[in-house]
Amino acid sequence: MPAHYVLTLLTDFGDRDVYVGVMKGAIAHVNPQLTVIDLTHHIPPQNLAAARFNLMNAYPYFPVPTVHVAVVDPGVGSQRRAIAIQLANGFLVGPDNGIFSGVLDHFPAIAAIELSNTDYWRTASPSATFQGRDIFAPVGAHLASGIPLKNLGSPIDPATLVYLPIAPATKTSFGFQGSIQYVDHFGNSVTNISANCLQNQPWFLRIHSQTIPSHQTYTDVEPGHSLALIGSHNWVEIAINRGNAAAQLHLQVGDRVEIYFTTLASDASLI
Amino acid sequence: MPAHYVLTLLTDFGDRDVYVGVMKGAIAHVNPQLTVIDLTHHIPPQNLAAARFNLMNAYPYFPVPTVHVAVVDPGVGSQRRAIAIQLANGFLVGPDNGIFSGVLDHFPAIAAIELSNTDYWRTASPSATFQGRDIFAPVGAHLASGIPLKNLGSPIDPATLVYLPIAPATKTSFGFQGSIQYVDHFGNSVTNISANCLQNQPWFLRIHSQTIPSHQTYTDVEPGHSLALIGSHNWVEIAINRGNAAAQLHLQVGDRVEIYFTTLASDASLI
Amino acid sequence: MPAHYVLTLLTDFGDRDVYVGVMKGAIAHVNPQLTVIDLTHHIPPQNLAAARFNLMNAYPYFPVPTVHVAVVDPGVGSQRRAIAIQLANGFLVGPDNGIFSGVLDHFPAIAAIELSNTDYWRTASPSATFQGRDIFAPVGAHLASGIPLKNLGSPIDPATLVYLPIAPATKTSFGFQGSIQYVDHFGNSVTNISANCLQNQPWFLRIHSQTIPSHQTYTDVEPGHSLALIGSHNWVEIAINRGNAAAQLHLQVGDRVEIYFTTLASDASLI
Repeated sequence: MPAHYVLTLLTDFGDRDVYVGVMKGAIAHVNPQLTVIDLTHHIPPQNLAAARFNLMNAYPYFPVPTVHVAVVDPGVGSQRRAIAIQLANGFLVGPDNGIFSGVLDHFPAIAAIELSNTDYWRTASPSATFQGRDIFAPVGAHLASGIPLKNLGSPIDPATLVYLPIAPATKTSFGFQGSIQYVDHFGNSVTNISANCLQNQPWFLRIHSQTIPSHQTYTDVEPGHSLALIGSHNWVEIAINRGNAAAQLHLQVGDRVEIYFTTLASDASLI
Repeated sequence: MPAHYVLTLLTDFGDRDVYVGVMKGAIAHVNPQLTVIDLTHHIPPQNLAAARFNLMNAYPYFPVPTVHVAVVDPGVGSQRRAIAIQLANGFLVGPDNGIFSGVLDHFPAIAAIELSNTDYWRTASPSATFQGRDIFAPVGAHLASGIPLKNLGSPIDPATLVYLPIAPATKTSFGFQGSIQYVDHFGNSVTNISANCLQNQPWFLRIHSQTIPSHQTYTDVEPGHSLALIGSHNWVEIAINRGNAAAQLHLQVGDRVEIYFTTLASDASLI
Repeated sequence: MPAHYVLTLLTDFGDRDVYVGVMKGAIAHVNPQLTVIDLTHHIPPQNLAAARFNLMNAYPYFPVPTVHVAVVDPGVGSQRRAIAIQLANGFLVGPDNGIFSGVLDHFPAIAAIELSNTDYWRTASPSATFQGRDIFAPVGAHLASGIPLKNLGSPIDPATLVYLPIAPATKTSFGFQGSIQYVDHFGNSVTNISANCLQNQPWFLRIHSQTIPSHQTYTDVEPGHSLALIGSHNWVEIAINRGNAAAQLHLQVGDRVEIYFTTLASDASLI
């Protein structure tokens, strides 16, 4: 058992109420010495796609092992399963609704458990509306305190976990075609086109009938000018140096994006 | 003395400025190893009713003993007392303005102290406008580090603590009558009618001339439909499955609510 | 080496995304037992003046030594230097763009280093857009774990650090003249006139052709009335008891403010 575990929280609970604080109270009840890190509590209510995207991007940057508790749970109280998953370098705890499928696209599950052992819950009679407090937070705290995964309930086949389908980027005759999958706090608009698609070829981007050049970083263009770049989580994104691309270019999640490899698009008629 | 104390913070300071960070600096000055948990810093400015409600709901979920420091303090710098209160399972530190009266409705005070011993303050000349930093945070940190309550100042009679009156729910011929006391981040509208009033009888709710059926959890109705339920803090609340009840039903704090026991209201003319 | 270091974070990353959480992951990778305190992550995007102001105000309230990591970094990826600075009572880590110049106005630099030793980075190939994660957070965590400053890179002359000029308050025939440098969460409007200018003389304030009396604290005037006072960080500020001065008096950053010493201004024609 490592000297010190980390536990992260990701929810759509916001910060106006005490819901997150109360989850941390339930964690401190189990083990007040855990290092608890907030990923974000501002996932838009019930937005599983945003939760999946953010957790996927955060996962690689945590020490081994870290326990990630994620609660965006529109089906709370229904028959959806409560689960814990073991990966090579960490654990996931939350509802079985696809919230973990972005992480699982990159890091396969080693084992999965349906959380049925109430010994590790805050109470054997959990609230029908706040299982983050009564099940997920205490189970995560027990896992992060060294309780083995198998103790938490009944094994389930990882292949049966709910998968949240995300439209993939597709190859085209001129490059790649995809869409905006997330807009961040700065207005940077992140596509579903991975840096791996680009294979070091020169490229530019088209969106809303505008051509946007690719660069390494924001300051490669003048303030107020737009650019496309590989963002810090390895997706193609659209930004404006010292500006807000989503607001100024009217971009939103789902908007269609095209990548042109310059070598293929030298004939302007292709655009 | 326990191995590891928890200290919570609840304020109306928001998160744009460094006020909360500076309180944590003052805590770390006393003891950097305390586990500090934010309940919320988004109480609407000077709103003691919202502060009282949130602290009351969070209190039961923390390990024993936890020190709760609460600073919503419209009277800072005036003659209002600065206090610490000992309960069976924790401590409360903050201004004597009624902020703790929700907790005290459920957990009686064992002892109370007016904070007058400047040895436990950050400075003997505290700011007239930021006693959270100069008095409450350091006193809370000393309490959470094992300093006895009595060292902090002069004993006061708990019966003299300021009490914030909240209109109670009342029994009627058909059930109960009350009002909305809080609207949360999701738009769930929490009444002042406790689950204990319902005594396992079938019931429905009336608000703004609309009848709303009672259920166990959100997913018991179709998405977009409204329901009344017992929320996670044991109050009757009004919600919409995957929706925002306050926004969609135009609900706000103070709106009158009626609970009808079905057995008494089978005659439709009662409604 | 002290038993327990504190590390603070101040950024313009907001709280909707996982950027701050990922920085904490990078810190936990180095040392999961550090006490990490958020100053604020709501600096307006790329606003160095607000970052400088908030860090300057927070700095004095932390134990010795504390490591402050600040990332408001419009020049990320350009040639601006990445630096760490040692002061008598702490360390500063971030971009060399003037963000630290408010702290340095009050606490002089003892030594400064350009961060060039990639051994203390998360990766020797850092992202061009997120050096908070790849350089500043891990370097801060190493410093807070006892690594000597000199190990982090090449010494630079503190006199060469970028300085962010802020218009100073100036003495006038009747008192002082300055401007609003910050508006906080409560609408309190903080000027660039320090309490030290006032030297215990009676004074009042003029802004937008209105005269505002000086008092000790908010409750010295009736609710809804405006006042000028020495705020908790020792600047003259304008407030409304239980109100929002910026919203109600239409105040904003840059607005001109005048302080009149009463002894000099007893002739009303001066105003």
